Amino acid sequence: MFIVGELINGMYKNVSRAIREKDRSLIQRLALEQIECGADALDVNCGPLSKDPKADIQWLVQAIQEVSDSPLTLDSTKPEVIEEGLKLMKNKAIINSTTADKEKLEILVPLALKYKASLIALTMDKKGIPQNKDQRIELAVSILESCQKYGFSVEELYLDPVALPVNVAQQQQKDVLESIRDFKLLSSPPPKTIVGLSNVSQGAKYRSLINRAFLVMAISSDLDAAILDPKDRELMGTLISSELILNRFIYCDSYIEVYKKK
Amino acid sequence: MFIVGELINGMYKNVSRAIREKDRSLIQRLALEQIECGADALDVNCGPLSKDPKADIQWLVQAIQEVSDSPLTLDSTKPEVIEEGLKLMKNKAIINSTTADKEKLEILVPLALKYKASLIALTMDKKGIPQNKDQRIELAVSILESCQKYGFSVEELYLDPVALPVNVAQQQQKDVLESIRDFKLLSSPPPKTIVGLSNVSQGAKYRSLINRAFLVMAISSDLDAAILDPKDRELMGTLISSELILNRFIYCDSYIEVYKKK
Repeated sequence: MFIVGELINGMYKNVSRAIREKDRSLIQRLALEQIECGADALDVNCGPLSKDPKADIQWLVQAIQEVSDSPLTLDSTKPEVIEEGLKLMKNKAIINSTTADKEKLEILVPLALKYKASLIALTMDKKGIPQNKDQRIELAVSILESCQKYGFSVEELYLDPVALPVNVAQQQQKDVLESIRDFKLLSSPPPKTIVGLSNVSQGAKYRSLINRAFLVMAISSDLDAAILDPKDRELMGTLISSELILNRFIYCDSYIEVYKKK
Repeated sequence: MFIVGELINGMYKNVSRAIREKDRSLIQRLALEQIECGADALDVNCGPLSKDPKADIQWLVQAIQEVSDSPLTLDSTKPEVIEEGLKLMKNKAIINSTTADKEKLEILVPLALKYKASLIALTMDKKGIPQNKDQRIELAVSILESCQKYGFSVEELYLDPVALPVNVAQQQQKDVLESIRDFKLLSSPPPKTIVGLSNVSQGAKYRSLINRAFLVMAISSDLDAAILDPKDRELMGTLISSELILNRFIYCDSYIEVYKKK
């Protein structure tokens, strides 16, 4: 599993404050802590309160790169903000994200190619959130067609089936889980898959229980990557145990520690 | 999910002592606590140290029935011990368990019929533990044939794929999980499925993490029943969240409490 740490996001008060006050040490500590806990990449999002997201994403990328070589997923709905981050990237970048809308794909697929970045693509469009698995598949196909058109390697693509909160979209959870499996069948080589895990429990009670149960099911569906809180030890333990049960790495008594250093 | 509480088992020191000293109150407390935590049935096992298992299972059944109407799974490798329990059952009994050996099926299937009991059948035989999914399916078929021969309703049958410890049989976990799903395809109406969850983590580190992750996967494979510790709150919360994600009961904020009172 490719683990993207979600904590450097301006929607969190501590990060929002750090961005405002240019507090590099907090951002750098969050970066190192997430990597220490097993994150393979770090999400970077200025948050909704940023008054100058182009400058803020540049500052965040620079601050993180001073202490870490981790890949970064540059997270914004605005392509021009993502590009400001891309310009400064020394290591692997992942664009987070495009939708299936043609006008977004036309900008972001070429941008990913230009900067040799990977690309996260949400199977949703201007019409809104898909209502079932078939709609997700349909949107995934149009994303794949767009990648093919520009010669963008499917192996650099992460399809996101758009996980929804269980308390408002309970009947769609199975569609999301089945989409993870079915996306793989749409091309050869197959695209990768990713979910934003915290969405599943948004607004629900006992959030960590729901996040963990959903993650196990998604891993059983061969999910490749997840954006989550790697500092949640129970969640990471659940992830690692799932990989163990599915025989993806060899059991040893210190499997938790060994996995994090993989 | 049909939840069988595992705690009334003579392999635990407190239960072994209670049996020896005829301490009804400990057994009755264990029964009520498990039911309070969400158990639908209670496993009853005299344990390996019992000198007179026939008398002990009778005493256990009587002690529990004084305080509860729950179904009991009468747990012994000896059919004559199970029958002593069956004789005293006022409520639904479940025989735990037969193997796929012909000589055991010849005794236990008719016994289940005679006492209108359900029957748990392990897909293993004298040759030992199955090594893969195909061997499990083969043994399940011979169990189903035996049920058909005696006119025993498949709906009263719980097939157990024999969960094995992840630290010694790591490559078999997927076989067990796939067997749970595939057993259902062997007859119409389908048999029910059950696992003894604690087996999965026997001897391993971080047992509760492994139990929980395996349980979520088994629930995704449409497992019908599990023998487990219902007093393990994290485990029960995991079970309930999994059922919620799979849309098996309607979300409400107090879903944990509501589920237990189902």
